[in-house]
Amino acid sequence: MQNTDIGDQNEAIKKNLGEINKVVMVISGKGGVGKSTVASNLALALAEKGKKIGLLDIDIHGPNLPKMLGVDKERLQSPGENRIEPVRISENLKLVSMAFLLPEENQAVIWRGPLKMKVIRQFLKDINWGKLDWLIVDSPPGTGDEPLSMAQLVPASSAIIVTTPQEISILDVKKSIDFARKLNLELLGIVENMSGLICPYCGKEIPLFKIGGGEKLAKKMGIPFLGAIPIDPEIVKAADQGILYVENFPDSSATKALKKIADKINNK
Amino acid sequence: MQNTDIGDQNEAIKKNLGEINKVVMVISGKGGVGKSTVASNLALALAEKGKKIGLLDIDIHGPNLPKMLGVDKERLQSPGENRIEPVRISENLKLVSMAFLLPEENQAVIWRGPLKMKVIRQFLKDINWGKLDWLIVDSPPGTGDEPLSMAQLVPASSAIIVTTPQEISILDVKKSIDFARKLNLELLGIVENMSGLICPYCGKEIPLFKIGGGEKLAKKMGIPFLGAIPIDPEIVKAADQGILYVENFPDSSATKALKKIADKINNK
Repeated sequence: MQNTDIGDQNEAIKKNLGEINKVVMVISGKGGVGKSTVASNLALALAEKGKKIGLLDIDIHGPNLPKMLGVDKERLQSPGENRIEPVRISENLKLVSMAFLLPEENQAVIWRGPLKMKVIRQFLKDINWGKLDWLIVDSPPGTGDEPLSMAQLVPASSAIIVTTPQEISILDVKKSIDFARKLNLELLGIVENMSGLICPYCGKEIPLFKIGGGEKLAKKMGIPFLGAIPIDPEIVKAADQGILYVENFPDSSATKALKKIADKINNK
Repeated sequence: MQNTDIGDQNEAIKKNLGEINKVVMVISGKGGVGKSTVASNLALALAEKGKKIGLLDIDIHGPNLPKMLGVDKERLQSPGENRIEPVRISENLKLVSMAFLLPEENQAVIWRGPLKMKVIRQFLKDINWGKLDWLIVDSPPGTGDEPLSMAQLVPASSAIIVTTPQEISILDVKKSIDFARKLNLELLGIVENMSGLICPYCGKEIPLFKIGGGEKLAKKMGIPFLGAIPIDPEIVKAADQGILYVENFPDSSATKALKKIADKINNK
């Protein structure tokens, strides 16, 4: 690919994302902190409030959002040349994921960095998002090719960092903060996920991954703290079964926490 | 770098790893399934049995093993030209991690794929492992640059796949199996981690991430099942404090499970 082509493509990306009010990347230092759960449920909570939301899953090796949102049998449609239509989850929520492009779900995507950059570029250039209040981007963990490509291709992005409270996770969050700052991403704040578990039998709180580490870190690093979400075994089940958690468990503590965080983001 | 150089380097890697009996990569489809916990505690369990063990942390973006093993203030020593000495954890256990090369622990490594390949190549070529029964490699999650580089540079490797029991994780494990098969890695088996949690207050078992998903998958895919490890909040605390779990909690259910798995691997 020639450099001039890349210049043209970057122009095309800018034009294609022109009707999107704000892009936010949901990132984490460590894997398995519930980044996809937080990204998808914040998207649901914002869509419920009447906001137009796009959800882009750039986790190329483990794209789980379609399964979590119950649309893993769908495929992307391409009605016109170079135009790809997102999959619709609800009136206000559209989704695009690498999973929709894979021939079968058990297949590993054994790609090195440059090819990942190319597919993310295409996602940004050719998808017909239309008018959006928020484009929420679910990145793979770490500070590698995918979030780096995204931050470079969409320079005005912002970021939410998800962490669990224990120190091993906090160590990696500091790296995410460093990453966001180096790439000039606006840091909307930190979400502490898996913050305590209520035993379903005796009702006592088990500090499984400790509690409060994310909040403490936010204060120390001078970054807004967006809120703490407790562990709810029902979130795990909902994700496995493709049930929209926020919509189906409106009274749970985790839903209430997620909605408060959505409000804070919406007011940014 | 010229192709002939790379040929020479591959020869040098082969020579340098010549005294290692077996290389095993600990991989996972999803992040946060406890891969580093399993890798480090299996290393401890095998070292306790008198085996000579090397532990190599190729998670370049989130290298956590030094902190988990209480040696995060150590640095690699290079006494001679092109020779790097691993950090010694105990008589039979040596560690090398990307973390030892970082100037300060909060810094993000914002590297694309080709640079990662280069550093992994150097790790394999220049580290003075000496005679080992097992070199255990802790990879970042997914099927990206790091595990791919490793599998290509050390063609006779084997692999252990770590998963949690819930379906979202199992979906990603199938990708890891596909990856291992495509790269001709010998699959030693599947470990089911975070398999149930005993409430520390009422003693009842909470199926937080469900139970049995890893075992079921192993059977279905014709792969050995190595064992299930329950969640123990003490493992989280030990990792945060750099306490060697298997050595310090010899009677816990998780240690017993880990030791059984180590025995199975040792008999392979």
